[in-house]
Amino acid sequence: MFILLCIDVSSRQKEIETKLRNTQREMEVLKSQVQGKSNKVVFGASISVGGNIGPFNTHTTLIYKKVYVNTGSFNPAAAKLITAIRIFTAPVRGVYYFSFSGHNHSSKPMGLQLMKNGGYVVTSYNHAAGNHYEAATNGMTLQLEVGDQVYMRLVQNTWIFDNMHNLSTFIGLLLFPL
Amino acid sequence: MFILLCIDVSSRQKEIETKLRNTQREMEVLKSQVQGKSNKVVFGASISVGGNIGPFNTHTTLIYKKVYVNTGSFNPAAAKLITAIRIFTAPVRGVYYFSFSGHNHSSKPMGLQLMKNGGYVVTSYNHAAGNHYEAATNGMTLQLEVGDQVYMRLVQNTWIFDNMHNLSTFIGLLLFPL
Amino acid sequence: MFILLCIDVSSRQKEIETKLRNTQREMEVLKSQVQGKSNKVVFGASISVGGNIGPFNTHTTLIYKKVYVNTGSFNPAAAKLITAIRIFTAPVRGVYYFSFSGHNHSSKPMGLQLMKNGGYVVTSYNHAAGNHYEAATNGMTLQLEVGDQVYMRLVQNTWIFDNMHNLSTFIGLLLFPL
Repeated sequence: MFILLCIDVSSRQKEIETKLRNTQREMEVLKSQVQGKSNKVVFGASISVGGNIGPFNTHTTLIYKKVYVNTGSFNPAAAKLITAIRIFTAPVRGVYYFSFSGHNHSSKPMGLQLMKNGGYVVTSYNHAAGNHYEAATNGMTLQLEVGDQVYMRLVQNTWIFDNMHNLSTFIGLLLFPL
Repeated sequence: MFILLCIDVSSRQKEIETKLRNTQREMEVLKSQVQGKSNKVVFGASISVGGNIGPFNTHTTLIYKKVYVNTGSFNPAAAKLITAIRIFTAPVRGVYYFSFSGHNHSSKPMGLQLMKNGGYVVTSYNHAAGNHYEAATNGMTLQLEVGDQVYMRLVQNTWIFDNMHNLSTFIGLLLFPL
Repeated sequence: MFILLCIDVSSRQKEIETKLRNTQREMEVLKSQVQGKSNKVVFGASISVGGNIGPFNTHTTLIYKKVYVNTGSFNPAAAKLITAIRIFTAPVRGVYYFSFSGHNHSSKPMGLQLMKNGGYVVTSYNHAAGNHYEAATNGMTLQLEVGDQVYMRLVQNTWIFDNMHNLSTFIGLLLFPL
């Protein structure tokens, strides 16, 4: 009888070992989803110093020179080289949020477009009276595939203004991977 | 002595099996919290084509016809039928973020209100000079119960403008369930 | 032979118990990361009633009296005492998102600055024409250390307006801990 018990214990033990291995494997997947860098994609930048930019006789991609946070690049070495945000390239498939604010301080209209792979997503226009400041903000939630490119475009024949006070900004972040 | 060892091993094994089952159960809960659809609620839309909307002599709920992303509905069949965002109904209890941008391109003021269950949450007003464009943006973080309704209201006797450039937008997303 | 089997089973059992304990420990860490309050930091508030605030002859920290949601304080008793948002103090190291909207309804410019530990992060200016309303919005993603302070500053000699419609708002939220 004790011999039978011992044999039974041995066979149930194999089962337990298999289940435990599976649980540990699932845990590793969960850990990487919760703690992994692939969940943590965010950037934020302002055009900062420069005064009036434009007007140009063609649509122009804006460069945001002052970077507050940028975890989009998974290569730490490369990250150190990124000193400006121009084009955001989605590192993972997922749903993202982007928002931008632009300030106008000129006699011309300001026209800004949030761009995805060459096409506009949303637009913001305003027109300051005289030399007054005026702000315009817009944004959108977007599903992106790996490699999709998102950036800001200054519409042709319009102006945008920034200075050391960091008036004109662009932020983006991953809400969740898919 | 070996018989006693064998009996001890058998009783400890039962304990291990119970613990492992509990661990697996906890893992399933965690998995559904991390990977489940209930965490992934987001929409984004613009009024898009239409020109000036209003003025109406009564407060009017806005319809955002161009939908960029909408994971709020957990019924895939129903999701395909959603071709416009009018009223967002919270599918889970949690804390959400909403933001809207409106553009004015008229001689009247624009008045927009983020609404929750019939009451306004926050408001944005502006007034374009002449035929110039002017933008106004606002938003709020809100704790919602299942079934709470959130939508945008055009204040009576005001105008909002949009066209194919997607100037006037409305986004919402779940920050975390409660 | 059965004696040997029984000894082997007993030693493998100790190994299994150790592994299971480790798995449970990892699970507890994950659970606190997924479900824990430390992930759930968000506030949202508006200045609300008050009419024009300013102009002051010095930069002035704004007080947002109407609080919509505030989970930043981990002390429930203290949370109940928080009836206004003035200075947000980061409870965990992480990447945060902040956004603000201000409305102007005066003959003076409005100047708002998102502040971090005494220095400005980003700024928004506008200037309403006549007694018209005008809105300005800006925001930024920021990496904060525990104890970092974030707040809104009204620039000296400028005005901001709010009333019962909740026009001028300030929100902040933790995107992820680091």
